[in-house]
Amino acid sequence: MNNAALYAAVDLGSNSFHMLVVHEVAGACRTLAKIKRKVRLAAGLQADGSLDAASMQRGWECLQLFAEQLQDIPAAHIRIVGTATLRLATNIAVFLERAEAILGHPVRIISGEEEAATIYEGVAWTSSGVGRRLVIDIGGASTELIIGENTHPQLLNSLHMGCVTWLSRYFVGGQLTAANFDQAIAAARQTLTPIAGDYLKLGWQNCVGASGTVQAIQEIMIGLGEDEQITLARLLQLKQAAITCGHLDRLDLPGLQSERASVFPSGLAILIALFEMLAIDSMTLAGGALREGLIYGMLGRRRECDARERTADSLISRYQLDREQAERVRSTALKALQQLASSQHIDSPATAMLGWAALLYELGLCIEYKRAPEHAAYIIRHVDLPGFTPAQKQLLAALLLNQRDEFRQESLEQQGAIEPEPAILLARLLRLAIILCLRRTRGTVPEFRLEARDRQLTLTLPADWSRNHHLRASELQQEAARQTEQGWPLVIQEQ
Amino acid sequence: MNNAALYAAVDLGSNSFHMLVVHEVAGACRTLAKIKRKVRLAAGLQADGSLDAASMQRGWECLQLFAEQLQDIPAAHIRIVGTATLRLATNIAVFLERAEAILGHPVRIISGEEEAATIYEGVAWTSSGVGRRLVIDIGGASTELIIGENTHPQLLNSLHMGCVTWLSRYFVGGQLTAANFDQAIAAARQTLTPIAGDYLKLGWQNCVGASGTVQAIQEIMIGLGEDEQITLARLLQLKQAAITCGHLDRLDLPGLQSERASVFPSGLAILIALFEMLAIDSMTLAGGALREGLIYGMLGRRRECDARERTADSLISRYQLDREQAERVRSTALKALQQLASSQHIDSPATAMLGWAALLYELGLCIEYKRAPEHAAYIIRHVDLPGFTPAQKQLLAALLLNQRDEFRQESLEQQGAIEPEPAILLARLLRLAIILCLRRTRGTVPEFRLEARDRQLTLTLPADWSRNHHLRASELQQEAARQTEQGWPLVIQEQ
Repeated sequence: MNNAALYAAVDLGSNSFHMLVVHEVAGACRTLAKIKRKVRLAAGLQADGSLDAASMQRGWECLQLFAEQLQDIPAAHIRIVGTATLRLATNIAVFLERAEAILGHPVRIISGEEEAATIYEGVAWTSSGVGRRLVIDIGGASTELIIGENTHPQLLNSLHMGCVTWLSRYFVGGQLTAANFDQAIAAARQTLTPIAGDYLKLGWQNCVGASGTVQAIQEIMIGLGEDEQITLARLLQLKQAAITCGHLDRLDLPGLQSERASVFPSGLAILIALFEMLAIDSMTLAGGALREGLIYGMLGRRRECDARERTADSLISRYQLDREQAERVRSTALKALQQLASSQHIDSPATAMLGWAALLYELGLCIEYKRAPEHAAYIIRHVDLPGFTPAQKQLLAALLLNQRDEFRQESLEQQGAIEPEPAILLARLLRLAIILCLRRTRGTVPEFRLEARDRQLTLTLPADWSRNHHLRASELQQEAARQTEQGWPLVIQEQ
Repeated sequence: MNNAALYAAVDLGSNSFHMLVVHEVAGACRTLAKIKRKVRLAAGLQADGSLDAASMQRGWECLQLFAEQLQDIPAAHIRIVGTATLRLATNIAVFLERAEAILGHPVRIISGEEEAATIYEGVAWTSSGVGRRLVIDIGGASTELIIGENTHPQLLNSLHMGCVTWLSRYFVGGQLTAANFDQAIAAARQTLTPIAGDYLKLGWQNCVGASGTVQAIQEIMIGLGEDEQITLARLLQLKQAAITCGHLDRLDLPGLQSERASVFPSGLAILIALFEMLAIDSMTLAGGALREGLIYGMLGRRRECDARERTADSLISRYQLDREQAERVRSTALKALQQLASSQHIDSPATAMLGWAALLYELGLCIEYKRAPEHAAYIIRHVDLPGFTPAQKQLLAALLLNQRDEFRQESLEQQGAIEPEPAILLARLLRLAIILCLRRTRGTVPEFRLEARDRQLTLTLPADWSRNHHLRASELQQEAARQTEQGWPLVIQEQ
């Protein structure tokens, strides 16, 4: 590899220092290393506003680790930023001088607004969703709140409240009492009061959370066997569970990693205040934030296109799929769906999902032919898919799994993105499109008409078509038998 | 895709007709379609040596299916061959005239020797193994026997015996009696008598079987929860189980697919005779045979290099791995292993496996970073790996799974290719090599000395090395703690 394709983003946060190293491959970022050390810089912020010697020392030691790897990456491909604690520290010059000497690179202390804008960029590149988006990132000493649309932030704020500072102020001695939580929540509400009105006025359609607190809550919910939507009711249950544990040292919730435990109660209190003040219904975890924003800022290309279009495009390149065939299957599948528009109601997000599935149907061939549909589903479930929500990933995986051979209906029923009935219809259309495009050659897809009555689909081909296209006619007959057997009648006829 | 990269091989066999369509991607073949129809041509061979009208008709109908796809593939990239039944049929001209008209391409009737040589080529390209190899392919009306070394066949024969012809001669009416089996086996032994001496004289180190019969036996053994080695004792058990069923229509063995059932008893009888006459210890299933030989004959490149080297090389290209880094980790891992040569006995096949694992360690990154070791193991378990036996695939997957993070020891114990102790040692060395090569840059791997005493490894680095290489020193300390905790002490020291 050429080191010229390496990029690094380093984030000197108030709780942890992080380094992300990525390799640009075929227009996408492939993560090569993620290194994190819990420096807890904010805990060293003293009453006079200066950082104490011990916390600076912890910071420098961590930077020595990062420096070893950074020396092999082009200087222009490195962004190192300091956030809240370094913004506040009065003796920042002392810290920076040695830090830059260790790193061999400048450290930029970014303003709260710049941090918020970069977080928004990282979220926009890695998450999907239509309409306006509220992004919340709870850091160690600051919390960023952004409303934006597509890649454009519209309202930005960075507040002086974070999970490390709130821990030392409101959970003194690690006591997890109801009174401590109430104080922490009340203080967070007060911090939010001046700005809440602007956010409520502008409004949003989706809410996305970044940072370790939100990740910890999601991990606990998965540990409890629940789904990934964070709601106020669940946050209040977690607060109660924490109070029952009584003390930070005894905090033991399923799925909560020990390294996240110490700032969990304070982060939870801030999040509860946010949900209450902004009347947030539910929140999902962002796929990226500040570090991803720094990386994408360096790459800086194709900012306006839909994250999912970019994702699909990049998968086609990375897995060396046959793009022409993928486009052929997509247009055939979408044409089939359009013909049903009068009789079947399929909304436009579901239509788009059929398009993505058709584009990516051959993904599994990069592993092996025989179980290719399973491999495609495996890849989709695990690959980073900027722009797709977890439920959309499940739907995409289910469609790819059902692209040929016997139906695996339970995957279509359990995906959670759309209702089972339309999901099954999408799978049926994908299968037909793949057979119709079997010759992989321009001009070989027949004109067809597709009609639906209840669950029955009728595919009408040109007169005498099957007499001249034996393989596809044979495959369509097999497919008709398979769908009909499954309880979804399919009739193939000629004009 | 450019259709210029498509290749097709069609095999008009005595039992089934097959079409294999592949796409050449980055020097490797990606299978796009496998189409098979059970034509049972040999069943139509009459006493006067002519093919009956019904069997010719079944053949032509199948060719109409194939023809639809073949028209989009360059003529120079298509090979269509006929084998035993078509060699024997006296009215072959009648069949061929219409067949070629349907296909739009010539059909070549190949001699038994040419068939044997092509099968050998297909096996050599898709299977591994050191030393001389005996390849056996039981077809519908002929059986090919080849001994060769690397890609060179040394002794070739094609015998007039096959699973369709033996079925109609010795299992009349589908009766699976002991007497029928005895007759079928005796006839096969007689057919083998003239040539067995030559094979026994030349000798071989591995025996590989191709064809549906061998595949059916392997599927039954997997169905019974056994390993994949086929032995005479197991074949005799299967014969007994078939006799217990009593009739072809009642043949019901776990894992036996219904479409393979009808020719299973006759193929089994032939295989038993082969094992007895040639004193075969055990046999494994080949990864490919005639059709693969035809495809590779068209591609015709790099015939002399080791199949596994070619496989690893092709994976590096297809998954866009960083080749320079892969080579760096391989040479570091092998250097470490070599330093232990005086104290630990690791044989050269195991050494080679460490090399492949090191070359492919980043395979999982193409899916995602966090669980990359699991993804790498998944890919290795499922991808076509010409040259690697199933047990070697398991070892490779286990090494990749154990490349970082917590140990997953059971996978190293269960791989079946080498003993658990050396497998664990290989994993420990791979992990060290990856950390030592962490900077991904030429000239950054330190000189080191590795020593072993019992299970303890001691890694000695240059004086003061850790003071100047903080990240790797920190990672090595973590690794030492992890291995030591696992019961495999690792000491890191400086000169």
